[in-house]
Amino acid sequence: MKRIKCKIAYDGTFFNGFQVQPKGRTIQGEIEKGIQKLHKGTHVKIYASGRTDTFVHAKGQIFHFDTPLLIPLERWHDALQTVLPSDIAVLEVSEAVKDFHARFDVISKEYRYFVQRGRRMDVFRRHYRYFYPYQLSVDNMVQAANQILGTHDYTSFCSAKTDKEDKVRTIYSIEIIEKEDELEFRFVGDGFLRNMVRILVGTILEVGRGRRNPEDLILVLNSRDREQAGHTAPGHGLFLWQVNYNN
Amino acid sequence: MKRIKCKIAYDGTFFNGFQVQPKGRTIQGEIEKGIQKLHKGTHVKIYASGRTDTFVHAKGQIFHFDTPLLIPLERWHDALQTVLPSDIAVLEVSEAVKDFHARFDVISKEYRYFVQRGRRMDVFRRHYRYFYPYQLSVDNMVQAANQILGTHDYTSFCSAKTDKEDKVRTIYSIEIIEKEDELEFRFVGDGFLRNMVRILVGTILEVGRGRRNPEDLILVLNSRDREQAGHTAPGHGLFLWQVNYNN
Repeated sequence: MKRIKCKIAYDGTFFNGFQVQPKGRTIQGEIEKGIQKLHKGTHVKIYASGRTDTFVHAKGQIFHFDTPLLIPLERWHDALQTVLPSDIAVLEVSEAVKDFHARFDVISKEYRYFVQRGRRMDVFRRHYRYFYPYQLSVDNMVQAANQILGTHDYTSFCSAKTDKEDKVRTIYSIEIIEKEDELEFRFVGDGFLRNMVRILVGTILEVGRGRRNPEDLILVLNSRDREQAGHTAPGHGLFLWQVNYNN
Repeated sequence: MKRIKCKIAYDGTFFNGFQVQPKGRTIQGEIEKGIQKLHKGTHVKIYASGRTDTFVHAKGQIFHFDTPLLIPLERWHDALQTVLPSDIAVLEVSEAVKDFHARFDVISKEYRYFVQRGRRMDVFRRHYRYFYPYQLSVDNMVQAANQILGTHDYTSFCSAKTDKEDKVRTIYSIEIIEKEDELEFRFVGDGFLRNMVRILVGTILEVGRGRRNPEDLILVLNSRDREQAGHTAPGHGLFLWQVNYNN
């Protein structure tokens, strides 16, 4: 058996999230269906770095699977792309060491969140940008973001639907970048709870709009109460950008 | 009655073309349905600068319609956007003179066609760029394009399905611009026949790839035979960019 590590991009617009569901098209479902074709009907389970929600995109999701197939490494890329739909792209394929695990071995992850500003929504970005047509103070948003960096219990910024007991995570950096009519948020952390990036973005945008003070963020964090944080920004502005492993 | 002139953008991905059809969602159909709501159920016909094919997008389509409504001009923009779906955006609304006609008064039109190069299709551009993963000589393409500028009978570059008798048109300019992994074609002319931009792009790309000589284009043009030209590039790479009128 070989362990294959694969880096993919996907447009989340037409998926019902990552994880296989009883109903609806999912990213995991489409990938496993494709890999099953390569294995003449035998089901092969894949293990990803983590799930992504409905409408969330990826520029660098990682998964692994084990295979008895003797396909040469350089042919795996095309073999996989051939059995995947047009909204999932294979970016890199490599052979991993036997004990590599796409979820357990994650060192850090980067998510990016994109906001379209201005008066009118751009039809060509409607599936990839959160349209937020309000005056924003980027200075206040940066000040708010800086308050919640570091190692904390992020219960306030986590969906109640989580199945994780331990809510302590480390955020290494949050960058907020203005580019023409867009805002780009870059989050790097050792891991993120369910909806965490989206709730952080929603709350920071409320600071930017003047509905909250930048200093409130530390109070929200300390409350460990989801109700104290802001709205969950929609999934379609979010991209799983990069997953980092040792070596 | 007032004559309202409207500039719109649309993402053509989920439309069955512009013109109302017995089956399928069309741009004209969605707009007329929306305007009908504003007129309490009375159907109002719109007149556009021209049709666009299935999957073709617009950044600056123009249409007009007549209305007895006394909505102040500054409120028309929001009124129209409210009744239109999220893949059609109102860009500008103005009151036109009584005898303005969105089709008959066109002075020139600009179409742009976008090609994605490189080895792998980008999932996020798959509905907006023609993926053409071949080595291309841009110099040869520019040379080919320059041969067919001017006033000619463009029968060779027109779909047989056209309903136009007169195939003489004037192309004022063709620019071919390289930008990172993309090629952008800009066509300005007094009007374009059915599929004309797409057949021109398909033929010029075949020159770029070395399957035709740049000098062939004038022979293709003079043959007045659609069979002599190249393939019809797909609709999803094409944008109706701008429509120009006198004044």
